[in-house]
Amino acid sequence: MDHEHNRMEATGMSTTRDAQLDAWFAAMPPVAAMDIRSAGHDGEVLRLRAPLAANVNDKACAFGGSLASIMTLAGWGWLTMRTLEDGRKVDVYVADSQVRYLLPLFGDLLAEARLAHGQDWTTIARSLAERGRARATMRARVLGPEGAVIATMDARFALMGG
Amino acid sequence: MDHEHNRMEATGMSTTRDAQLDAWFAAMPPVAAMDIRSAGHDGEVLRLRAPLAANVNDKACAFGGSLASIMTLAGWGWLTMRTLEDGRKVDVYVADSQVRYLLPLFGDLLAEARLAHGQDWTTIARSLAERGRARATMRARVLGPEGAVIATMDARFALMGG
Repeated sequence: MDHEHNRMEATGMSTTRDAQLDAWFAAMPPVAAMDIRSAGHDGEVLRLRAPLAANVNDKACAFGGSLASIMTLAGWGWLTMRTLEDGRKVDVYVADSQVRYLLPLFGDLLAEARLAHGQDWTTIARSLAERGRARATMRARVLGPEGAVIATMDARFALMGG
Repeated sequence: MDHEHNRMEATGMSTTRDAQLDAWFAAMPPVAAMDIRSAGHDGEVLRLRAPLAANVNDKACAFGGSLASIMTLAGWGWLTMRTLEDGRKVDVYVADSQVRYLLPLFGDLLAEARLAHGQDWTTIARSLAERGRARATMRARVLGPEGAVIATMDARFALMGG
Protein backbone atom coordinates (compact mmCIF):
# COMPACT_ATOMS: atom_id res chain seq x y z
CA MET A 1 0.00 0.00 0.00
CA ASP A 2 2.77 2.45 0.92
CA HIS A 3 4.56 1.54 -2.26
CA GLU A 4 1.41 2.15 -4.29
CA HIS A 5 0.75 5.39 -2.45
CA ASN A 6 4.28 6.66 -3.13
CA ARG A 7 4.03 5.65 -6.75
CA MET A 8 0.80 7.62 -7.13
CA GLU A 9 2.34 10.63 -5.47
CA ALA A 10 5.32 10.39 -7.79
CA THR A 11 3.00 10.19 -10.78
CA GLY A 12 1.11 13.24 -9.58
CA MET A 13 4.34 15.20 -9.16
CA SER A 14 5.47 14.13 -12.59
CA THR A 15 2.22 15.31 -14.17
CA THR A 16 2.57 18.70 -12.46
CA ARG A 17 6.17 18.96 -13.67
CA ASP A 18 5.14 18.06 -17.20
CA ALA A 19 2.41 20.72 -17.17
CA GLN A 20 4.83 23.36 -15.81
CA LEU A 21 7.46 22.56 -18.46
CA ASP A 22 4.85 22.51 -21.25
CA ALA A 23 3.57 25.93 -20.12
CA TRP A 24 7.12 27.36 -20.30
CA PHE A 25 7.75 25.81 -23.70
CA ALA A 26 4.42 27.06 -25.10
CA ALA A 27 5.34 30.61 -24.01
CA MET A 28 8.56 30.60 -26.07
CA PRO A 29 7.63 31.14 -29.76
CA PRO A 30 10.48 29.12 -31.36
CA VAL A 31 9.92 26.24 -28.90
CA ALA A 32 6.15 26.32 -29.47
CA ALA A 33 6.79 26.19 -33.22
CA MET A 34 8.94 23.07 -32.78
CA ASP A 35 6.10 21.63 -30.66
CA ILE A 36 8.54 20.50 -27.94
CA ARG A 37 6.83 18.94 -24.89
CA SER A 38 7.74 17.11 -21.73
CA ALA A 39 7.75 13.32 -21.95
CA GLY A 40 8.34 12.66 -18.27
CA HIS A 41 10.92 13.08 -15.50
CA ASP A 42 12.02 10.27 -13.21
CA GLY A 43 14.35 12.30 -11.00
CA GLU A 44 17.48 11.30 -12.89
CA VAL A 45 16.42 11.88 -16.48
CA LEU A 46 14.15 14.46 -18.11
CA ARG A 47 12.68 13.44 -21.46
CA LEU A 48 11.28 15.78 -24.10
CA ARG A 49 9.58 14.94 -27.37
CA ALA A 50 8.67 16.74 -30.60
CA PRO A 51 7.06 15.62 -33.86
CA LEU A 52 9.23 15.29 -36.96
CA ALA A 53 6.75 17.29 -39.07
CA ALA A 54 7.49 20.50 -37.15
CA ASN A 55 11.25 19.86 -37.22
CA VAL A 56 12.01 18.52 -40.67
CA ASN A 57 14.78 19.83 -42.95
CA ASP A 58 15.33 19.76 -46.72
CA LYS A 59 16.35 16.06 -46.61
CA ALA A 60 13.13 14.83 -44.94
CA CYS A 61 14.95 14.21 -41.64
CA ALA A 62 15.25 16.19 -38.41
CA PHE A 63 16.81 19.66 -38.69
CA GLY A 64 20.12 19.94 -36.81
CA GLY A 65 18.98 23.16 -35.13
CA SER A 66 15.94 21.34 -33.76
CA LEU A 67 18.14 18.55 -32.37
CA ALA A 68 20.39 21.15 -30.70
CA SER A 69 17.33 23.03 -29.41
CA ILE A 70 15.56 20.06 -27.83
CA MET A 71 18.77 18.85 -26.15
CA THR A 72 19.52 22.34 -24.82
CA LEU A 73 15.96 22.63 -23.48
CA ALA A 74 16.18 19.20 -21.87
CA GLY A 75 19.28 20.29 -19.94
CA TRP A 76 17.72 23.66 -19.09
CA GLY A 77 14.45 22.02 -18.01
CA TRP A 78 16.22 19.44 -15.82
CA LEU A 79 18.11 22.15 -13.91
CA THR A 80 15.14 24.50 -13.65
CA MET A 81 12.88 21.77 -12.27
CA ARG A 82 15.57 20.48 -9.89
CA THR A 83 16.18 23.90 -8.34
CA LEU A 84 12.39 24.44 -7.99
CA GLU A 85 12.18 21.15 -6.09
CA ASP A 86 14.83 22.53 -3.73
CA GLY A 87 12.60 25.56 -3.18
CA ARG A 88 14.85 27.93 -5.12
CA LYS A 89 13.95 30.34 -7.91
CA VAL A 90 17.00 30.27 -10.15
CA ASP A 91 17.68 31.62 -13.63
CA VAL A 92 19.36 29.00 -15.79
CA TYR A 93 21.45 30.02 -18.81
CA VAL A 94 23.30 27.83 -21.28
CA ALA A 95 26.98 28.86 -21.40
CA ASP A 96 28.45 26.55 -24.03
CA SER A 97 27.73 23.26 -25.72
CA GLN A 98 29.31 20.58 -27.85
CA VAL A 99 26.97 18.68 -30.14
CA ARG A 100 27.71 15.61 -32.22
CA TYR A 101 25.31 14.72 -35.01
CA LEU A 102 25.70 10.97 -35.50
CA LEU A 103 22.77 9.72 -37.61
CA PRO A 104 19.89 11.23 -39.58
CA LEU A 105 16.52 10.91 -37.82
CA PHE A 106 13.50 10.14 -39.99
CA GLY A 107 11.05 9.92 -37.06
CA ASP A 108 9.82 11.97 -34.12
CA LEU A 109 12.36 13.49 -31.72
CA LEU A 110 12.90 12.05 -28.25
CA ALA A 111 15.56 13.77 -26.12
CA GLU A 112 16.81 12.96 -22.65
CA ALA A 113 19.06 14.91 -20.31
CA ARG A 114 20.79 14.13 -17.03
CA LEU A 115 23.66 15.49 -14.97
CA ALA A 116 26.95 14.71 -16.71
CA HIS A 117 29.18 12.01 -15.25
CA GLY A 118 31.11 13.35 -12.28
CA GLN A 119 28.57 16.09 -11.51
CA ASP A 120 27.12 16.05 -8.00
CA TRP A 121 23.90 17.87 -7.18
CA THR A 122 24.86 18.37 -3.53
CA THR A 123 27.90 20.39 -4.56
CA ILE A 124 25.89 22.46 -7.05
CA ALA A 125 23.14 23.15 -4.48
CA ARG A 126 25.75 24.17 -1.89
CA SER A 127 27.30 26.65 -4.30
CA LEU A 128 23.85 28.12 -5.01
CA ALA A 129 23.12 28.44 -1.29
CA GLU A 130 26.50 29.95 -0.40
CA ARG A 131 27.31 32.09 -3.43
CA GLY A 132 23.99 32.54 -5.23
CA ARG A 133 25.44 30.98 -8.35
CA ALA A 134 26.74 27.69 -9.68
CA ARG A 135 27.80 25.84 -12.82
CA ALA A 136 26.39 22.53 -13.91
CA THR A 137 27.31 20.29 -16.84
CA MET A 138 24.52 18.33 -18.48
CA ARG A 139 24.66 15.40 -20.86
CA ALA A 140 21.82 15.07 -23.36
CA ARG A 141 21.07 12.93 -26.37
CA VAL A 142 18.40 12.33 -28.97
CA LEU A 143 17.30 8.74 -29.53
CA GLY A 144 15.87 7.27 -32.71
CA PRO A 145 12.82 5.00 -33.01
CA GLU A 146 14.85 1.85 -32.22
CA GLY A 147 17.01 3.45 -29.52
CA ALA A 148 19.86 4.44 -31.84
CA VAL A 149 21.76 7.52 -30.65
CA ILE A 150 21.04 10.29 -33.18
CA ALA A 151 22.93 13.16 -31.50
CA THR A 152 24.68 13.92 -28.23
CA MET A 153 25.30 17.16 -26.35
CA ASP A 154 27.55 18.14 -23.46
CA ALA A 155 26.59 21.58 -22.22
CA ARG A 156 27.56 23.80 -19.34
CA PHE A 157 24.89 25.93 -17.71
CA ALA A 158 25.14 28.90 -15.36
CA LEU A 159 22.65 29.03 -12.48
CA MET A 160 22.04 32.38 -10.82
CA GLY A 161 19.90 33.45 -7.88
CA GLY A 162 18.28 31.37 -5.23
CA MET B 1 32.00 51.22 -66.86
CA ASP B 2 33.46 47.72 -66.51
CA HIS B 3 33.65 48.25 -62.80
CA GLU B 4 30.02 49.36 -62.67
CA HIS B 5 29.00 46.48 -64.93
CA ASN B 6 30.73 43.95 -62.69
CA ARG B 7 29.24 45.48 -59.60
CA MET B 8 25.76 45.18 -61.09
CA GLU B 9 26.39 41.56 -62.05
CA ALA B 10 27.59 40.83 -58.54
CA THR B 11 24.49 42.46 -57.10
CA GLY B 12 22.32 40.38 -59.41
CA MET B 13 24.06 37.18 -58.35
CA SER B 14 23.68 38.13 -54.72
CA THR B 15 19.95 38.73 -55.16
CA THR B 16 19.58 35.33 -56.83
CA ARG B 17 21.52 33.67 -54.03
CA ASP B 18 19.38 35.39 -51.40
CA ALA B 19 16.21 34.20 -53.13
CA GLN B 20 17.53 30.65 -53.40
CA LEU B 21 18.49 30.53 -49.72
CA ASP B 22 15.17 32.07 -48.66
CA ALA B 23 13.28 29.45 -50.69
CA TRP B 24 15.19 26.65 -48.94
CA PHE B 25 14.62 28.19 -45.51
CA ALA B 26 10.91 28.72 -46.16
CA ALA B 27 10.58 25.03 -47.08
CA MET B 28 11.93 23.87 -43.69
CA PRO B 29 9.16 24.27 -41.07
CA PRO B 30 11.37 25.02 -38.01
CA VAL B 31 13.44 27.51 -40.03
CA ALA B 32 10.32 29.17 -41.47
CA ALA B 33 8.98 29.48 -37.90
CA MET B 34 12.18 31.24 -36.82
CA ASP B 35 11.76 33.51 -39.88
CA ILE B 36 15.43 33.10 -40.83
CA ARG B 37 16.38 34.85 -44.09
CA SER B 38 19.46 35.67 -46.11
CA ALA B 39 21.03 39.06 -45.43
CA GLY B 40 23.61 38.91 -48.20
CA HIS B 41 26.73 37.05 -49.31
CA ASP B 42 29.94 38.78 -50.36
CA GLY B 43 31.89 35.67 -51.34
CA GLU B 44 33.70 35.39 -48.02
CA VAL B 45 30.85 35.82 -45.56
CA LEU B 46 27.21 34.73 -45.63
CA ARG B 47 24.89 36.72 -43.39
CA LEU B 48 21.49 35.58 -42.13
CA ARG B 49 18.95 37.50 -40.07
CA ALA B 50 15.86 36.71 -38.00
CA PRO B 51 13.50 38.82 -35.88
CA LEU B 52 13.72 38.55 -32.09
CA ALA B 53 9.92 38.15 -31.81
CA ALA B 54 10.03 34.72 -33.48
CA ASN B 55 13.07 33.64 -31.45
CA VAL B 56 12.51 34.92 -27.95
CA ASN B 57 12.83 32.83 -24.78
CA ASP B 58 11.38 33.12 -21.27
CA LYS B 59 13.83 35.93 -20.39
CA ALA B 60 12.81 38.26 -23.26
CA CYS B 61 16.09 37.58 -25.09
CA ALA B 62 17.06 35.29 -27.96
CA PHE B 63 16.56 31.55 -27.37
CA GLY B 64 19.85 29.59 -27.35
CA GLY B 65 18.42 27.05 -29.76
CA SER B 66 17.64 29.82 -32.24
CA LEU B 67 21.21 31.15 -31.95
CA ALA B 68 22.58 27.64 -32.60
CA SER B 69 20.13 27.16 -35.47
CA ILE B 70 20.92 30.38 -37.33
CA MET B 71 24.67 29.81 -37.00
CA THR B 72 24.36 26.21 -38.21
CA LEU B 73 22.25 27.36 -41.17
CA ALA B 74 24.74 30.10 -42.01
CA GLY B 75 27.54 27.51 -42.23
CA TRP B 76 25.32 25.11 -44.18
CA GLY B 77 24.16 27.87 -46.53
CA TRP B 78 27.72 29.09 -47.19
CA LEU B 79 28.89 25.62 -48.21
CA THR B 80 25.77 24.81 -50.23
CA MET B 81 25.99 28.06 -52.21
CA ARG B 82 29.75 27.70 -52.73
CA THR B 83 29.47 24.20 -54.17
CA LEU B 84 26.61 25.35 -56.45
CA GLU B 85 28.85 28.13 -57.76
CA ASP B 86 31.39 25.43 -58.64
CA GLY B 87 28.66 23.64 -60.60
CA ARG B 88 28.34 20.79 -58.12
CA LYS B 89 25.21 19.37 -56.50
CA VAL B 90 26.38 18.40 -53.03
CA ASP B 91 24.55 17.35 -49.88
CA VAL B 92 25.86 19.24 -46.85
CA TYR B 93 25.44 17.77 -43.34
CA VAL B 94 26.54 19.24 -40.02
CA ALA B 95 28.75 16.69 -38.22
CA ASP B 96 29.54 18.43 -34.94
CA SER B 97 29.61 21.89 -33.43
CA GLN B 98 30.90 23.85 -30.47
CA VAL B 99 28.83 26.86 -29.45
CA ARG B 100 29.70 29.53 -26.90
CA TYR B 101 26.91 31.74 -25.61
CA LEU B 102 28.61 34.96 -24.51
CA LEU B 103 25.92 37.61 -24.04
CA PRO B 104 22.13 37.80 -23.99
CA LEU B 105 20.65 39.34 -27.14
CA PHE B 106 17.65 41.65 -26.71
CA GLY B 107 17.39 42.53 -30.41
CA ASP B 108 17.05 40.88 -33.81
CA LEU B 109 19.47 38.11 -34.77
CA LEU B 110 22.26 38.71 -37.30
CA ALA B 111 24.54 35.75 -37.99
CA GLU B 112 27.57 35.46 -40.24
CA ALA B 113 29.56 32.44 -41.35
CA ARG B 114 32.84 31.96 -43.18
CA LEU B 115 35.41 29.23 -43.69
CA ALA B 116 37.34 28.70 -40.45
CA HIS B 117 40.91 29.93 -40.23
CA GLY B 118 43.26 27.51 -41.98
CA GLN B 119 40.55 26.07 -44.25
CA ASP B 120 41.25 26.29 -47.96
CA TRP B 121 38.47 26.00 -50.53
CA THR B 122 40.80 24.67 -53.23
CA THR B 123 41.64 21.66 -51.06
CA ILE B 124 37.98 21.04 -50.21
CA ALA B 125 36.93 21.30 -53.88
CA ARG B 126 39.70 18.92 -54.92
CA SER B 127 38.56 16.34 -52.38
CA LEU B 128 34.99 16.64 -53.70
CA ALA B 129 36.18 16.20 -57.29
CA GLU B 130 38.47 13.27 -56.55
CA ARG B 131 36.61 11.40 -53.82
CA GLY B 132 33.04 12.68 -54.01
CA ARG B 133 33.23 13.84 -50.40
CA ALA B 134 34.99 16.36 -48.21
CA ARG B 135 35.02 17.91 -44.75
CA ALA B 136 34.88 21.65 -44.10
CA THR B 137 35.08 23.59 -40.85
CA MET B 138 33.04 26.77 -40.61
CA ARG B 139 33.23 29.63 -38.13
CA ALA B 140 30.01 31.48 -37.38
CA ARG B 141 28.88 34.09 -34.91
CA VAL B 142 25.86 36.14 -33.95
CA LEU B 143 26.34 39.87 -33.58
CA GLY B 144 24.34 42.23 -31.39
CA PRO B 145 22.93 45.62 -32.38
CA GLU B 146 26.24 47.41 -31.60
CA GLY B 147 28.48 44.72 -33.03
CA ALA B 148 28.99 42.85 -29.76
CA VAL B 149 29.63 39.12 -30.21
CA ILE B 150 26.61 37.32 -28.76
CA ALA B 151 27.59 33.73 -29.62
CA THR B 152 30.20 31.85 -31.64
CA MET B 153 30.18 28.48 -33.34
CA ASP B 154 32.86 26.24 -34.80
CA ALA B 155 31.25 23.45 -36.78
CA ARG B 156 32.45 20.68 -39.03
CA PHE B 157 30.35 19.76 -42.04
CA ALA B 158 30.41 16.71 -44.29
CA LEU B 159 29.96 17.33 -48.03
CA MET B 160 28.88 14.40 -50.20
CA GLY B 161 28.30 14.02 -53.91
CA GLY B 162 29.30 16.24 -56.79
